[in-house]
Amino acid sequence: MSSRTDPVDVLISEVGPRDGLQSIDTILPLALKKAWVTAEAAAGVREIEVGSFVPAALLPQLADTAEVVRHAKTIPGLTVAVLVPNLRGAEAAIAAGADKISLPLSASETHSLRNLRRTHAQVIAEAAAIAALIRTLPRARRPHFEGALSTAFGCTIEGAIPDARLASLAEALMTAGCDEVGLSDTSGYADPRQVKHLVRLVRGVVGDTALTGLHLHNTRGLGLANALAGLEVGITTLDASLGGLGGCPFAPGASGNIVTEDLAFMLDAMGLKTGIDLPRLLDVRRKLGEWLPGEAVFGFTAEAGLPVGFGPRSQAA
Amino acid sequence: MSSRTDPVDVLISEVGPRDGLQSIDTILPLALKKAWVTAEAAAGVREIEVGSFVPAALLPQLADTAEVVRHAKTIPGLTVAVLVPNLRGAEAAIAAGADKISLPLSASETHSLRNLRRTHAQVIAEAAAIAALIRTLPRARRPHFEGALSTAFGCTIEGAIPDARLASLAEALMTAGCDEVGLSDTSGYADPRQVKHLVRLVRGVVGDTALTGLHLHNTRGLGLANALAGLEVGITTLDASLGGLGGCPFAPGASGNIVTEDLAFMLDAMGLKTGIDLPRLLDVRRKLGEWLPGEAVFGFTAEAGLPVGFGPRSQAA
Repeated sequence: MSSRTDPVDVLISEVGPRDGLQSIDTILPLALKKAWVTAEAAAGVREIEVGSFVPAALLPQLADTAEVVRHAKTIPGLTVAVLVPNLRGAEAAIAAGADKISLPLSASETHSLRNLRRTHAQVIAEAAAIAALIRTLPRARRPHFEGALSTAFGCTIEGAIPDARLASLAEALMTAGCDEVGLSDTSGYADPRQVKHLVRLVRGVVGDTALTGLHLHNTRGLGLANALAGLEVGITTLDASLGGLGGCPFAPGASGNIVTEDLAFMLDAMGLKTGIDLPRLLDVRRKLGEWLPGEAVFGFTAEAGLPVGFGPRSQAA
Repeated sequence: MSSRTDPVDVLISEVGPRDGLQSIDTILPLALKKAWVTAEAAAGVREIEVGSFVPAALLPQLADTAEVVRHAKTIPGLTVAVLVPNLRGAEAAIAAGADKISLPLSASETHSLRNLRRTHAQVIAEAAAIAALIRTLPRARRPHFEGALSTAFGCTIEGAIPDARLASLAEALMTAGCDEVGLSDTSGYADPRQVKHLVRLVRGVVGDTALTGLHLHNTRGLGLANALAGLEVGITTLDASLGGLGGCPFAPGASGNIVTEDLAFMLDAMGLKTGIDLPRLLDVRRKLGEWLPGEAVFGFTAEAGLPVGFGPRSQAA
């Protein structure tokens, strides 16, 4: 197995403990969240979004995020990411020691109002306030700050999102002080051609280094095809959820992140280094099924197993 | 809806009535097979593999293939394809009036022996005999003859297939008189990089026009990503199965063709013309579930539905 400091070709960012757990009814006990993060990091996953700093009344499943962050921070080399809906969440994330914070800005204002209860202008003001807070910190303690453009590929309420709006929101987030923007297919509307088009469009506005990641769902089965399209235009970070756990509780029908183990298998088979040990990752997937009895998990590789004679091709290359 | 003679960018070849029905226990009555073919053709599908001319003792599910072919031949503009294991099957296919016949040659000789009970040399001799038979027919009655290289991307028994073997088998099929070769991921082992590599490799041997189609499975969830990779290297025909019905009964664990409706959605969303009317295709998928109660069907688009505001983008373009 590769060491956690070896360079990777593609960074898989595990979002199951946040996007997965927020969308199911079961509240996973803190001890099992810690065990999940520990086990997945041990399987070679380099970045994990461990939770969300939202009011516990809204998402009781994630009420213990600060404690999960503190635990995750004890794992050497792991990038500990969290989602925050506003400045107050960012303060809590920084206090807990998160390495990366993502603020979602829904390209669909209708979805923004339902999801975050804020207009575009309000979210961008929040981004500016978070960026200002981060600048008050010593350089070494500043988290990486991403503005995550959700419903970027279309919205279950508004439908298609005009290019011009996406470009201007991306620009506004960077102007507000984000280090980077990301594109999220919250509703599973993306197709490979659109992925390439929108990555190029937004990179044209914010620059190549300020858009490196995609958050894709598998709602219509196109998740890995969209991931491939992203790779082909230079995307290097892909969010995924172990067992495909998750979705967006506020966008009806929008369920299912792309599956970490299927993505890791695809990348490894393609000879791309992810740092992940597939058999160990599949072990964690099996444990996840035990930790969450009765919850639906997805994915094909776990059921089919690895191909006969399959070895980590990225290491053989 | 487009007319059946409009050109398409990508030909989706429906293989469910053959690959799907051969792998399930239910024997679909002839009347329902006819209804399936009629309905899917009416939804705009241009080519359907309606059955296989194998001994009824081996695959009783397909014993009425000749009758399905004769029915399908009454549908104007539909290319009626069948699979044949040998010369005797080809004779029956020609007698029934099939437009296209495919002879599988497993790149894995072990799989070939288990699936067709023949060595590579024996299958290639059979291909030569079929090609000779076809040459005796008047030009207008000659079916298109494809040699389908199954387990091309790896085998559940032998594992990886050496490039040199695949290249030499493709060449042997063309020398024997096939019009074309196809590559089949019988075991769901393919990854996008390998798809591009093997398409280029085989085209280097047989020429670009003699490899236009891929038969992909979704065993590890990579089916549509592999389809996308194929498109990117010039593949124009993709096999798929409505509801993902099917697999190979002789390759354990190798289940699940790529899903016709998910593929059609992806291509349409990308602005590629398939001639297929998606809402009508989804109607056929619903009917298929009723015709085959208790049998597993797959796919995401049927469950999620089409995106809000989704119209046929290929026709808008």
